[in-house]
Amino acid sequence: MKPTILMMPRLADDAIASLKRDYTVIGPVDGDDAASIPAEAREARAMVTYGGRRTSAELMDALPKLELIACYGTGIERVDAAAAKARGIQLCNAADANARSVAEFAVGLMLNSMRGIGRGDRFVRDGLWSGRGGEPVSNTPDLAGRKIGIYGLGAIGSRIASRAAAFEMEVGYHSRSPKPELPYQFHDSLLGLASWADVLMIAVRASNETRHAVDAAVLDALGREGHVVNISRGLVIDEEALCTALEQKRIAGAALDVFAEEPHVPERLRKLENVVLTPHIAASSQDAKKAQLRTLLGNLEAFFAGRPMPAGVPL
Amino acid sequence: MKPTILMMPRLADDAIASLKRDYTVIGPVDGDDAASIPAEAREARAMVTYGGRRTSAELMDALPKLELIACYGTGIERVDAAAAKARGIQLCNAADANARSVAEFAVGLMLNSMRGIGRGDRFVRDGLWSGRGGEPVSNTPDLAGRKIGIYGLGAIGSRIASRAAAFEMEVGYHSRSPKPELPYQFHDSLLGLASWADVLMIAVRASNETRHAVDAAVLDALGREGHVVNISRGLVIDEEALCTALEQKRIAGAALDVFAEEPHVPERLRKLENVVLTPHIAASSQDAKKAQLRTLLGNLEAFFAGRPMPAGVPL
Repeated sequence: MKPTILMMPRLADDAIASLKRDYTVIGPVDGDDAASIPAEAREARAMVTYGGRRTSAELMDALPKLELIACYGTGIERVDAAAAKARGIQLCNAADANARSVAEFAVGLMLNSMRGIGRGDRFVRDGLWSGRGGEPVSNTPDLAGRKIGIYGLGAIGSRIASRAAAFEMEVGYHSRSPKPELPYQFHDSLLGLASWADVLMIAVRASNETRHAVDAAVLDALGREGHVVNISRGLVIDEEALCTALEQKRIAGAALDVFAEEPHVPERLRKLENVVLTPHIAASSQDAKKAQLRTLLGNLEAFFAGRPMPAGVPL
Repeated sequence: MKPTILMMPRLADDAIASLKRDYTVIGPVDGDDAASIPAEAREARAMVTYGGRRTSAELMDALPKLELIACYGTGIERVDAAAAKARGIQLCNAADANARSVAEFAVGLMLNSMRGIGRGDRFVRDGLWSGRGGEPVSNTPDLAGRKIGIYGLGAIGSRIASRAAAFEMEVGYHSRSPKPELPYQFHDSLLGLASWADVLMIAVRASNETRHAVDAAVLDALGREGHVVNISRGLVIDEEALCTALEQKRIAGAALDVFAEEPHVPERLRKLENVVLTPHIAASSQDAKKAQLRTLLGNLEAFFAGRPMPAGVPL
């Protein structure tokens, strides 16, 4: 008999088809509380979800046979890890499967923000380009010769670093501990990194510890010529403080793939000229999805075979 | 007495100020025919212009003391070089001064087109992001693992190549002759390059020889999943054929900083979703402008001192 899996959000059709080959798949499920769970899900031994979706102790208790919470992406930030551990439930994610895709998207956002590509595109589409040339949207900084400060030098951050270096940028970073094996400059505080950098790249794992780490003080340290890019999670930035800094031009620009309350993007942000806003798609490329699905299937297969999962998360 | 220089297009204020330190500066001039030239320009020994602006034999004849045509940028495509040579007039440009700035912008356009950043930004700004996620604008290809075919491997093209390699792309090129010292795959025809590539990057010098080189056949060879990026000159692409290919989705997308009749951008292009359009700003960053001005001043200084110019163009 196939093991039962509860799929919380709707995955792509090809992912569902792959799962159904080996598992009985229940879901998708609309809510994230115990009442939303259909009766047949009580048989589920594994749950497939996203890190951005709340997985509470109460939800776990509504699934008496649950042994595994499998996050489709890299994030695990809204899974109650302590509650899972207390119940003997294991956790896995996509590990580095999407790191390359996210890193290149992050560099794309940085180029877009610093070199004014989005602004230039609106300028042309709005029919504003005239004999005066593209002056109103040019005069940007180059990446070359500028300093990128990477907050979080994990699988994604280190891939952003190597790409930024190819653009002849100076690379610095802040993380919990220095990585002397990498040729980049360590800063022992986020504030220090922001003061040093021309662009602050947020690639840190979202957690209670990093919540609102990028606040008004960090943005002011980045300064009037500075850009901020976020491909981590919205909660790492104090979004209100960011809106204020952008409105008052206390920083030059921001490029954001993630937001505090997705899919809600504040009107304050959407009406600004000095921002680039994308709908959390850095890890939604064909290639990232393929790699994430491969990792998910590998985790499930190993788990049900009693082998160590390729991307288990220690609790 | 300061030598007299005729400035055809209006340069930036700081550039004009730098020129006035050592030269009597006449201009800017509105037209490009002899009748537009003010009487006092008859003293001009040098003209400062852009390659995209027509510099005809007739114009040269209206400037009896002209000895030098100095192009501010890299392009020299609309200077009548044969007429200049016949009159003993020398030519200079900005050589590689803007190559780094243009190359990084080109990679920005490629990321924007392939990873759907501009499309994602419109999606968010238009308030279309809902509970369904960013699906309508995701599912893009990664750069990593894809093939970039660079048409023209000069100062700009080779810098695009090294950046693309950092994104784990496979790099091929077509140029007049192979460059065996570089680790990239040579293709002996543009059509062959386009058939091979996932993205066709146009970095070739514009000339009569390369006019409309990227035509319907090349775009069809690139194919339905292919992207085209142009940071060279509009005349290298058959713009009508490109519009048709984009409308009929015979290629996946285009990112264009240059157009056939600037600043006119066809309505056909401006209303498409699968294009990124910027107003010829790849070489208009602060850094590119500084480097170009430095080269212009160096050329003028050397010329008037009777020394070889740092960026003279052989005629």
